[in-house]
Amino acid sequence: MSSDDLKNQSLALHKKYQGKIKMGAVAKVKSKEDLSLLYSPGVAYSSLAIKNDPSLAYEYTCKGRMIAVVSDGSAVLGLGNIGPLGALPVMEGKCLLFKSFAGVEAVPICLDTQDTEEIIRTVKILAPNFAGINLEDISAPRCITIERRLKEELDIPVFHDDQHGTSIVVSAALLNLSRLYKMNLSDLTVVLSGTGAAGSSIARRIKKLGIKTLYAYNAQGVVTKAKYDRYNFVVKEMLNEGIIDSFDKEDAKLEDLMTEADIFIGVSVANLLKPEMVKSMKRRIVFALANPNPELSMEDAKLCEPLIYATGRSDLPNQINNVLAFPGLFKGAIDAHATKITDGMIEAAIYALANVIKDEELRSDYLTPNPFDKRVAKVIAKAVKKQAIKEDVIRK
Amino acid sequence: MSSDDLKNQSLALHKKYQGKIKMGAVAKVKSKEDLSLLYSPGVAYSSLAIKNDPSLAYEYTCKGRMIAVVSDGSAVLGLGNIGPLGALPVMEGKCLLFKSFAGVEAVPICLDTQDTEEIIRTVKILAPNFAGINLEDISAPRCITIERRLKEELDIPVFHDDQHGTSIVVSAALLNLSRLYKMNLSDLTVVLSGTGAAGSSIARRIKKLGIKTLYAYNAQGVVTKAKYDRYNFVVKEMLNEGIIDSFDKEDAKLEDLMTEADIFIGVSVANLLKPEMVKSMKRRIVFALANPNPELSMEDAKLCEPLIYATGRSDLPNQINNVLAFPGLFKGAIDAHATKITDGMIEAAIYALANVIKDEELRSDYLTPNPFDKRVAKVIAKAVKKQAIKEDVIRK
Repeated sequence: MSSDDLKNQSLALHKKYQGKIKMGAVAKVKSKEDLSLLYSPGVAYSSLAIKNDPSLAYEYTCKGRMIAVVSDGSAVLGLGNIGPLGALPVMEGKCLLFKSFAGVEAVPICLDTQDTEEIIRTVKILAPNFAGINLEDISAPRCITIERRLKEELDIPVFHDDQHGTSIVVSAALLNLSRLYKMNLSDLTVVLSGTGAAGSSIARRIKKLGIKTLYAYNAQGVVTKAKYDRYNFVVKEMLNEGIIDSFDKEDAKLEDLMTEADIFIGVSVANLLKPEMVKSMKRRIVFALANPNPELSMEDAKLCEPLIYATGRSDLPNQINNVLAFPGLFKGAIDAHATKITDGMIEAAIYALANVIKDEELRSDYLTPNPFDKRVAKVIAKAVKKQAIKEDVIRK
Repeated sequence: MSSDDLKNQSLALHKKYQGKIKMGAVAKVKSKEDLSLLYSPGVAYSSLAIKNDPSLAYEYTCKGRMIAVVSDGSAVLGLGNIGPLGALPVMEGKCLLFKSFAGVEAVPICLDTQDTEEIIRTVKILAPNFAGINLEDISAPRCITIERRLKEELDIPVFHDDQHGTSIVVSAALLNLSRLYKMNLSDLTVVLSGTGAAGSSIARRIKKLGIKTLYAYNAQGVVTKAKYDRYNFVVKEMLNEGIIDSFDKEDAKLEDLMTEADIFIGVSVANLLKPEMVKSMKRRIVFALANPNPELSMEDAKLCEPLIYATGRSDLPNQINNVLAFPGLFKGAIDAHATKITDGMIEAAIYALANVIKDEELRSDYLTPNPFDKRVAKVIAKAVKKQAIKEDVIRK
């Protein structure tokens, strides 16, 4: 589809439906008796029961079924800071995907503030209504502060999809790469371009999975301890904790990093990689996830023939798409009555996602399942629920 | 139904449905093409269009269809301050009624704060998502401050149902009373018990409709200028503006007021009126709207035989129930693309509601339509929309 066709068809579809989601009734109100049972005076009994035992809100109200998809519109897709109204089509789309892929009911909440403390406070004020909070498209490093604080201060699952959704799918793809080629992750060096929301979560996650060395590249160039003072707290933490390995060659460029790389993972900008850079890699494994235009264009990929070429695009194989992760993850957390989403639950999601593809099905162009594979959300939900129960992070 | 039966059946119904509303998909996501049109990358075109022209949010998102039902749980039904979780069944119920009676989509938003300024700020932060704000069950006089400020500071309709929902239905009932008995409202004296959210709105509304004299009674006894310093700003304003007429007899009691009354309107407490007090009225017209038990009990009403006996109860005739007003009112405001709900729109709703009952159908026990009369929401919506367009309070 041409971009003009895409634009016209997409706008027409949004206009036709006036958005993508709807609020409806579960119960019917057809008689005075219905009214007295579902509203006044009968509803008072649910209110009083919940007042005496707040956990009953999960039984008597929609709280136990609904999550909020929260954004401040500060970093929407690749469009930047377009504000809450501009973000609304995307958040509504996310709610549509939650519902369509896992039956999770979600409400878009775009906030007309970009003050970190005010966002935290607002989400806490809204928390009684929801079984979980999915943060979305909030600029880094604020998104990391906001998620950390809300995880600490709320008793419902909080999950920033831009960080962990992407890292779950990247991690599953790496596991399948290792399975397909019988590689040990602990023998491999990754070059990561982008150290924001997605990049920092990917770095932490794949180091934990066993990746030996991880060099990073961002808007300040090659990440090295020599530039420590120029980094935000996210990059400083990762350098301090040895998540990012400092690349200490003076005046190093991306080209210098690439000669060390078995795997390139980009969550940064279009067309960053040139074919020569890929040719210089130890292994030509390229996850070029910038959207909609990857760090290595399709044309350039043909010139350097990567062993693996994964992108965020739905028109290419090996699509690294968050939709593989977040619907099942929240479905599992809700089904378990989870009070948080732990590292263990995220790891359970990674392995469940990877293992959707059987050994004999794995191929270099089939490392991640098709987003429409109906098994995906189910197996992730099951694994996440099981892990939540095992870790006993469920409400009593 | 006994109260035990009501309790058990209502709780069972809430548990069966896990609440009363649901979030669903309007559009279907069945293919990669759907995904690319409704989500990434196609959704970016809606976001960009809205960034350039914010009014397009009404065309391309659910904003134009959805309202928020907002409470802080500080004054829920007759249950008092039971907090946001306790309020959730009631707000969800309200959303159910919006949907069932007028097809208006509504999201329950119970706020975990009771600070007036924080409530105002939070609603403003949430406003981008909604076509309107229905405030509910917030204690007086805070509710009045909150509504006034939000009406000033937001460009979408804001309506506090406890104030104006009740006053719309009471006003329509008074108009029909005047029509039925050929009485001039300007000849009549009202005694109003309760000067909080509902009482203050009723007072202003019926004075505007022509009621000559309005005496009031509240927790401080008979309202008189002599006690001016003891009143909150709401009562002070009404005394200053001549909405409430000061009853200046020293040490007056409710009994003294009642001998002056053609009409008693109570939005206060159960069993306040004794049969003798009703017998002493100039005309025995009693709107005893305390819920669930009226100011004049059914048993006592039999002992004093009011000309009119209206209550909030669904098991008695002349039910004064907000559900007659708010669904159609918001439907009309949304259909008109209204930016506010004006006094004129509220008056249009009053006359539309009253005129659902034709001259020849009016009876002393049929002053207000049955809540399940399907004409009600339609005629109110039509009248409100027409008035909004006439006053030109619609977005361009």
